[in-house]
Amino acid sequence: MTYCLALRLDDGLVFMSDTRTNAGVDNISNYRKLHILRPAPDRIFVLQSAGNLATTQEVLDRIHHDLAAPAGTESLATVEEMFQAALYVGRVSRTVVAAHRDGLMSSGADGTATFILGGQLRGSAPDIMLVYPEGNYIRASDERPFLQIGESKYGKFMLDIAVRAHADLAAAAKIALASMISTARANLSVGPPYDLGVYRTDALTIDEFRITEDSTILHRLLELWEKHIMAALHELPAVTDLDELVAEPGRARP
Amino acid sequence: MTYCLALRLDDGLVFMSDTRTNAGVDNISNYRKLHILRPAPDRIFVLQSAGNLATTQEVLDRIHHDLAAPAGTESLATVEEMFQAALYVGRVSRTVVAAHRDGLMSSGADGTATFILGGQLRGSAPDIMLVYPEGNYIRASDERPFLQIGESKYGKFMLDIAVRAHADLAAAAKIALASMISTARANLSVGPPYDLGVYRTDALTIDEFRITEDSTILHRLLELWEKHIMAALHELPAVTDLDELVAEPGRARP
Repeated sequence: MTYCLALRLDDGLVFMSDTRTNAGVDNISNYRKLHILRPAPDRIFVLQSAGNLATTQEVLDRIHHDLAAPAGTESLATVEEMFQAALYVGRVSRTVVAAHRDGLMSSGADGTATFILGGQLRGSAPDIMLVYPEGNYIRASDERPFLQIGESKYGKFMLDIAVRAHADLAAAAKIALASMISTARANLSVGPPYDLGVYRTDALTIDEFRITEDSTILHRLLELWEKHIMAALHELPAVTDLDELVAEPGRARP
Repeated sequence: MTYCLALRLDDGLVFMSDTRTNAGVDNISNYRKLHILRPAPDRIFVLQSAGNLATTQEVLDRIHHDLAAPAGTESLATVEEMFQAALYVGRVSRTVVAAHRDGLMSSGADGTATFILGGQLRGSAPDIMLVYPEGNYIRASDERPFLQIGESKYGKFMLDIAVRAHADLAAAAKIALASMISTARANLSVGPPYDLGVYRTDALTIDEFRITEDSTILHRLLELWEKHIMAALHELPAVTDLDELVAEPGRARP
C-alpha cells in the first residue's frame, strides 16, 4: 500500500509520501513516491503516486518523454493552468493502463494508479489536485484543504486538527509527519523513509527532505504525542462523573 | 455503518458503541448496539453488534428466547466459559443468517453480523472476544488488549496510545470516547448518542452511560484535543531544521 498526503495552506503547500511498496507481504521494497518536476522556469509540479508501481513508473517515464519531445507535443511544459496539468496526467495514466489491460486482465491484477498533483504556475495560485484512475480530478476544498491517497483513514484525524488550528508551513510539516507515522503504525504496508516537500507560494522551487527510520524526530514525536494526549485526557472531567450523563443502571435483561 | 470498541484493562473492561444505523444515506436511524445480559447471578455479558441490523436483532431475540427456554437448552446461562459463550453467539448468528439466506441473496444484501462479546463468569478472568460471521472468535491479545468492529481505522490511533500509557478504567473511558468521536467526525454513518459500559473486575454488574450529541464533554474533549496536539507539535523541533534530515535540493528533473 501507500500513504501520500498534501496540504494547501495560506503560505504554500506541504507534501509527504512514504516509500514502502509491496507485492504480497513477502515482497517488500522501497520506491520514491514523491516526484518533483520543474519543466520550465515559470512552473513547478509535485507528483505523488499510489497504486500499481509499474503504472506509476511508466507514467513518470512518459511525462519525461513528452517533455523531451519536439515543440508542439503536449506536456507539463505546455499546459497553461493546473487543471490542464491534472487532465494531462490523467490521460497519460489511462493510456498506460489501457496499453497493459490485456496482460493485467490475464493475471487479475489491478493496474490503475491514483495521483496527487500539486504545484504552481507563475501568475496563478498554488494548488493541489487528486487525479483519479478514470482521468478526471478533484481539488482540495477550502473547508478541507488537504488530499490523501492510499491508506488514508488512520492519519486523517491529524489533518483535521491542522486545518482547525490554521497551521503554518512549519507546523503543517510536523502534522504531515504525525499523520504519516499514525498510519505507518497501523498499516505495515506503509513505512519509512518518508519524503517531505515544503513549497512556499511563488518560490517556484521546493525544499525536499527525507526522514529515515532511525530519525530521532520520529521517536521524539511519539513521546510528545503520548505525553500530551494523556495530559488532555487528564484535564477532561471523568466521563462517568458527569451529571449530564444519563446513567442507566438496571437495564440488564432478563 | 457502526463503530464499537472494547478494551481489556488490569482493572476491568470498557465498552463503547455508537447508535447510528443506515440503510443508504437517506434512511438513518438510531439503535442501541451495546447490550447487557445478566442471565444468572454468577455471570454478566456485554454484546456489541455491527452488520445487518435485522440479523443482530434476531440474534438478540434468540439469545433471550433460549434463556427463557426449559432447562437443558443451551444458552448464555448454561455456558461454563467465555469461549463457549462466544461459540454459542457465533452459532446463533450463523443460524439466523442461514434462515434468511434465500431472501437476502435475491436482493444481494449482506445479512452477516460481527459481534464483540465481553464479560465475566465468576471464578474466571473478565475477557473480550470478537465473534466473526463465520461463527469462530478471537480474543484480544495482551499486547493489543482491545477489539473493534465496524469502522475501525479512524479511531485506532487513540487505542494504541491508551495501551502504551497503561490507562486505568476512568482514563480508558475517556480514550474510548475520544476514539469514538474521531471516527464519527470522519464517517457520517457513525454517530451519537454513544453508549458506554464500564465493568470493574469481579463486580458482576456494569455501569452504563449514554453520551448525547449536546453533551458538553464532547465539546470540551475536542477543545482539549486541539490544544494539546498543537502543544505537542510546538514542542517538536521543526522537521525542516534538523541536521539529521537529508535535504535533497536539486533533484528536480529535467
